Amino acid sequence: SGLVHIKNPHLDSMEEDVLYHLDLGTKTHNLPAMFGDIKFVCVGGSPNRMRAFAQFMHKELGLAGDGEDLADICAGTDRYAMYRAGPVLSISHGMGIPSISIMLHELIKLLHHAKCRDVTIIRIGTSGGLGIEAGSVVITDMAVDSSFKPRFEQVVLDDVVVRSTELDKDLAEELLACSKEIPDFPTLIGHTMCTYDFYEGNGRLDGALCSFSSEKKLQYLRRAYDAGVRNIEMESTAFAALCGLCGLKGESSRGRFCLL
Amino acid sequence: SGLVHIKNPHLDSMEEDVLYHLDLGTKTHNLPAMFGDIKFVCVGGSPNRMRAFAQFMHKELGLAGDGEDLADICAGTDRYAMYRAGPVLSISHGMGIPSISIMLHELIKLLHHAKCRDVTIIRIGTSGGLGIEAGSVVITDMAVDSSFKPRFEQVVLDDVVVRSTELDKDLAEELLACSKEIPDFPTLIGHTMCTYDFYEGNGRLDGALCSFSSEKKLQYLRRAYDAGVRNIEMESTAFAALCGLCGLKGESSRGRFCLL
Repeated sequence: SGLVHIKNPHLDSMEEDVLYHLDLGTKTHNLPAMFGDIKFVCVGGSPNRMRAFAQFMHKELGLAGDGEDLADICAGTDRYAMYRAGPVLSISHGMGIPSISIMLHELIKLLHHAKCRDVTIIRIGTSGGLGIEAGSVVITDMAVDSSFKPRFEQVVLDDVVVRSTELDKDLAEELLACSKEIPDFPTLIGHTMCTYDFYEGNGRLDGALCSFSSEKKLQYLRRAYDAGVRNIEMESTAFAALCGLCGLKGESSRGRFCLL
Repeated sequence: SGLVHIKNPHLDSMEEDVLYHLDLGTKTHNLPAMFGDIKFVCVGGSPNRMRAFAQFMHKELGLAGDGEDLADICAGTDRYAMYRAGPVLSISHGMGIPSISIMLHELIKLLHHAKCRDVTIIRIGTSGGLGIEAGSVVITDMAVDSSFKPRFEQVVLDDVVVRSTELDKDLAEELLACSKEIPDFPTLIGHTMCTYDFYEGNGRLDGALCSFSSEKKLQYLRRAYDAGVRNIEMESTAFAALCGLCGLKGESSRGRFCLL
């Protein structure tokens, strides 16, 4: 059907669903009217960048006005920022898995309540490249953890549940084809490694703590490269796992997602 | 000596230390002049709240002006916001362990470069209470993970390192004594549980995914209560581990920290 699925039997019996961190809710807002026609959701860490991206999309789509005065739909909270340009929603998610997870839980419920169909969700943003030309865009075919395994370990109460982190390969190929239409736009498909820490987890030598040598760091990064990793960031495994479980992949050939 | 310690032998040989996510650096800013007299650092999730807290401190300390126009010291970036009121620094850290970790790595290096002495760091913010009166303040004596253990597992490259999450008990008692001077200010000392997820990790029934029953949730929360947990949030174990390792505890009777 192309609809977004939530896997929570408790939600049906709730009188109201408050999306706390988006400052939206099923009783306070008419979500189908506000969001029912959304077809693309782009998410990234920084609120300013996601505003700039919405303004860019506004111009690209030739929408009325100059797009400079786009309103933050989540203006009532400073947890996340959300803008729309036509059928495109642009949302910030902060840094790290817990931060993007809160946003995705509430976004997925928003798309469900709004009865959106055939939604494509794409994470955009910066990352550390591995053995590739600076400025390259990595389209993720698979998100892997710090052991290079395509899995996301989610703690549910005190149990650990392991989830798949595969992404939509057709969409990855489609985005790669788009990149070829633009001159001087170095783009490749590869694995993306997701870490819980920017300093010690990413092999950086410039944190407040660093217990490893430059050699050990390079050995680790070389092993990552040999396992197919082409960039490192801090959200991809949770993004892939949550979107995959909620029908943003596979159930409809357009309900799919990819990590850019 | 009361100084803040960094445990990174690589840092001494670096010509410049850029605190990327704070938009500050050792070459671009005179950190000792800007921050050398800081004695208290208060951190919390929301940028707006940390601005309001700095304004509140400005008034409480009787500083000149009404404090309404406090400048964001990190205005060049939207990752975090930082304000100061006299010897008090007020900084936002976003949501979750990865987000607070990035900020703390850079804050600890900032305090080190600025040659600050005897700094007390306190996390303030909201949390979910467990079996306590709504509106109570929980002063954390120990941060525990989702298995109620006082530990923080940090992935360093692909090794897992286990770190202690004890907090300063004297400071906790001192803060508790302060609370008793204020009428109707319900305050207690207890353990704080830190999770990686707001929905499935906190036993919430209103996420996009929920695989457990209301009974199983209550059983888990009761076990947490019996283990001494009085509130749940998403940053305390990393906060305790990083601050503890960097000499913000024990090395000087005033270089200490607590979680409020």
